[in-house]
Amino acid sequence: MGTIKAITSLSNPTIKYVMALRKRNVRDAEKKYIIEGNRELQRAFDAHIKIETFFYVLGGSFSEEEKKLLEQAQNNGISLIACSLEVFQKISYGERFEKLLAIASMQYSSWSLLEKKFSNPPFLLIAEQIEKPGNLGAILRSTDAAGVDGIILCDPLTDIFNPNVVRASIGTFFSQTIVLSHAEEAFHFLSKHQIKIIATTPDAEKDYTDSDLTGSVAIAVGAEHQGLSSQWIERADEKIRIPMQGVTDSLNVAIASTLVLYEVCRQRKNR
Amino acid sequence: MGTIKAITSLSNPTIKYVMALRKRNVRDAEKKYIIEGNRELQRAFDAHIKIETFFYVLGGSFSEEEKKLLEQAQNNGISLIACSLEVFQKISYGERFEKLLAIASMQYSSWSLLEKKFSNPPFLLIAEQIEKPGNLGAILRSTDAAGVDGIILCDPLTDIFNPNVVRASIGTFFSQTIVLSHAEEAFHFLSKHQIKIIATTPDAEKDYTDSDLTGSVAIAVGAEHQGLSSQWIERADEKIRIPMQGVTDSLNVAIASTLVLYEVCRQRKNR
Repeated sequence: MGTIKAITSLSNPTIKYVMALRKRNVRDAEKKYIIEGNRELQRAFDAHIKIETFFYVLGGSFSEEEKKLLEQAQNNGISLIACSLEVFQKISYGERFEKLLAIASMQYSSWSLLEKKFSNPPFLLIAEQIEKPGNLGAILRSTDAAGVDGIILCDPLTDIFNPNVVRASIGTFFSQTIVLSHAEEAFHFLSKHQIKIIATTPDAEKDYTDSDLTGSVAIAVGAEHQGLSSQWIERADEKIRIPMQGVTDSLNVAIASTLVLYEVCRQRKNR
Repeated sequence: MGTIKAITSLSNPTIKYVMALRKRNVRDAEKKYIIEGNRELQRAFDAHIKIETFFYVLGGSFSEEEKKLLEQAQNNGISLIACSLEVFQKISYGERFEKLLAIASMQYSSWSLLEKKFSNPPFLLIAEQIEKPGNLGAILRSTDAAGVDGIILCDPLTDIFNPNVVRASIGTFFSQTIVLSHAEEAFHFLSKHQIKIIATTPDAEKDYTDSDLTGSVAIAVGAEHQGLSSQWIERADEKIRIPMQGVTDSLNVAIASTLVLYEVCRQRKNR
């Protein structure tokens, strides 16, 4: 085995390619995305995410966790690429001092996979037009925690493969069932399976805790500023609100989503 | 009335002072902080926050909302300082295109004010050692929405006057009762008023929805990574957990706090 050579040039085409993947249009065209963070990488392995390339700092002093990740990459036949510290810092994000980074293939789940994941009764989240990566990531962390069967991501303004979504979800979305959809397709699917659409909106009259959420439900939450679009509100089987006692009339969308998801859990547990 | 002169120099001492207030040590020494955002400024006025100086872009085309804010500042005898666009962009934060900014006096609430705010039974939040401004701001937005009587901020690693806390709370904290405290002082206060400490920790055996939260309660939540310190867990009257179904063993601290606060609301409503 020869000596391992590290990429030391910032103008190396592979390095330029990785940097370009921080842009959505490049990700969409290439169908590849970046995974960073040891916890995120481990969850990607655990969920059998298709990782293609693994970058590491040549001569880095690796923690046990990092060594284990490198070993898994090797055992899975993933190509390992060594970089100089300077190059690695360029491809890695912000001020985090990590030594590993992976490129994986983008993949959303299919409707038929979602059907297979249905619990009895089904429990879904519909997230419409979420804009901020941090919010989408936090929502996915909560859907994992609340144990939903799957997420229907409707006309999102940020993709789940944005590095900040991967981060904010701490890699929980790798093992979740996430379908990318337009509204009409989603309505068709939900109606076919007789799943009730529960729209979360400040204009509703019923508190979320007064709604019976023990049946087949899809909780729908909308964009940060506008909330759910009228098509979702009009076609909802029920509209619910979160009561607000103070000076503000809304909660952060990830927080509002989690409240309703956990109310479903509470009601089902006590059924 | 003479022609209004705008500050056009970045080396103007007032401008340097405003920029310095983005640093915690300067804020703490000066007991002043920055308020930005039209919604935040309006809430500061509504809550009678002591605003000292109001900066605006000379010749800016102001919205109706902004004109109203400027008028309120004038009516309250606040000194108005005009800046050139270049100078204003320097003192204002990030890529937001706003035209107003204020300097206010820092103030925390006293224990005696908190006592006066007690509902029957009292309902408090204890936030220990929160580190990220975005999380602390989100927690304060939720305490406003859930209608807690007040917040005990224990040994915080970020101050509520950090511009990002002001932002993330969307100015909801101006009207809230927030006491800054060390743990011992807080224990003393809670014990004096016979308020039960409910510690939120993943190691608890009881789900938060199985706990009776209808009495006098102070919900305690801890730092992002370590959670509550042992002193709070040991001295808690009850320990509760949020059930987790997925691959992760924790939720974001603002989300976890909100779940428990709203469970208090739900139980009290249905009492």
